[in-house]
Amino acid sequence: MEQEFASSLLENAVSAFASLPGIGRKTALRLVLHLLKQNEQDVTAFGEAFIKLRREIRYCTMCHNISESEVCPICSSPSRDASTVCVVENVKDVMSIENTQQHRGLYHVLGGLISPMDGVGPQDIEIDSLVKRVADGGVKEVILALSATMEGDTTNFYIFRRLAPYPDVKITMLARGVSVGNEIEYTDSLTLGRSILNRTPFQDSFSTNQ
Amino acid sequence: MEQEFASSLLENAVSAFASLPGIGRKTALRLVLHLLKQNEQDVTAFGEAFIKLRREIRYCTMCHNISESEVCPICSSPSRDASTVCVVENVKDVMSIENTQQHRGLYHVLGGLISPMDGVGPQDIEIDSLVKRVADGGVKEVILALSATMEGDTTNFYIFRRLAPYPDVKITMLARGVSVGNEIEYTDSLTLGRSILNRTPFQDSFSTNQ
Repeated sequence: MEQEFASSLLENAVSAFASLPGIGRKTALRLVLHLLKQNEQDVTAFGEAFIKLRREIRYCTMCHNISESEVCPICSSPSRDASTVCVVENVKDVMSIENTQQHRGLYHVLGGLISPMDGVGPQDIEIDSLVKRVADGGVKEVILALSATMEGDTTNFYIFRRLAPYPDVKITMLARGVSVGNEIEYTDSLTLGRSILNRTPFQDSFSTNQ
Repeated sequence: MEQEFASSLLENAVSAFASLPGIGRKTALRLVLHLLKQNEQDVTAFGEAFIKLRREIRYCTMCHNISESEVCPICSSPSRDASTVCVVENVKDVMSIENTQQHRGLYHVLGGLISPMDGVGPQDIEIDSLVKRVADGGVKEVILALSATMEGDTTNFYIFRRLAPYPDVKITMLARGVSVGNEIEYTDSLTLGRSILNRTPFQDSFSTNQ
């Protein structure tokens, strides 16, 4: 629903919010009225946060994660295991995996998944740079940590094929299984089947950092 | 949950979105990653829409609605009935009522409702200016179009008392009744009771512009 606003300033601000995913014009108007109640300095800082972010953001030249320096703190840390590279879709996934504190290696951020439906091909994401990292040597294991979706699986297979010329590099992927806290009764049968095939020795389940 | 971001630019942008009502840090991060995919020019326009809005917004000196001129298009329109003033809480309500096309008079935007719980007293909203408008003469009817809540009723009563010195001015309020499309069975008894007390002649229900 297009609404007529009393002011083009208001119209522009509402349209700006409404251009974001998941935000409609009604919510956008509510957010704009909230901003109007804030003081001018705060609203200026609000708007400039996005302008500065987009203008000054840099990506790590190694892993393509968001970074303030040419090489990000993770890639340049001497305490991380440079021989293990975890391949993820985006920046959020790096944060999710970092939060688990279970990965001591480096990352490689693809910036998307192969999705023919959305017109995203292998050349649109950071796969060539991943292959080059592996070809340059030093990588012993590539962990594919992509979503368990059609796009994730397609991307997994594509990367697997592209890394075939390097048989010494181990390629692993995240375990599929019953989510912690989930009941067997409510676990879908595909997941349950995979969790039986990939069953693990009982004593391993006590170790969180193996 | 406070997350550690790789970049203070990212942190600032996420915090900016998360400062808005109803937006948490997870949604904020999703919105920020969306902005990062847009080109720099679009993101600059995005941020500047809010900065410009807050810096340049003007309010109509008569009705306190958002306006680009000193007196808004509604207040300055010769085709509107200046003797009928509809009192509303905020700018959104003006738009809602304008959309009905049933009100040909002017508005008075309070900018809030009296709410002792939130520390909003009569002096914090545009009640004095409403009383002055009535005192200046020319207003024959004041329509109270406030929400059917505790705060709305409190504000209604307060305005009613403040306008008591002007007995020639008719004070009306929105009809309470069964919403169009609602079933009797699911209408709450307070509303149903009011709708019986305020029953209308059957033939009036065919007229939408009486």
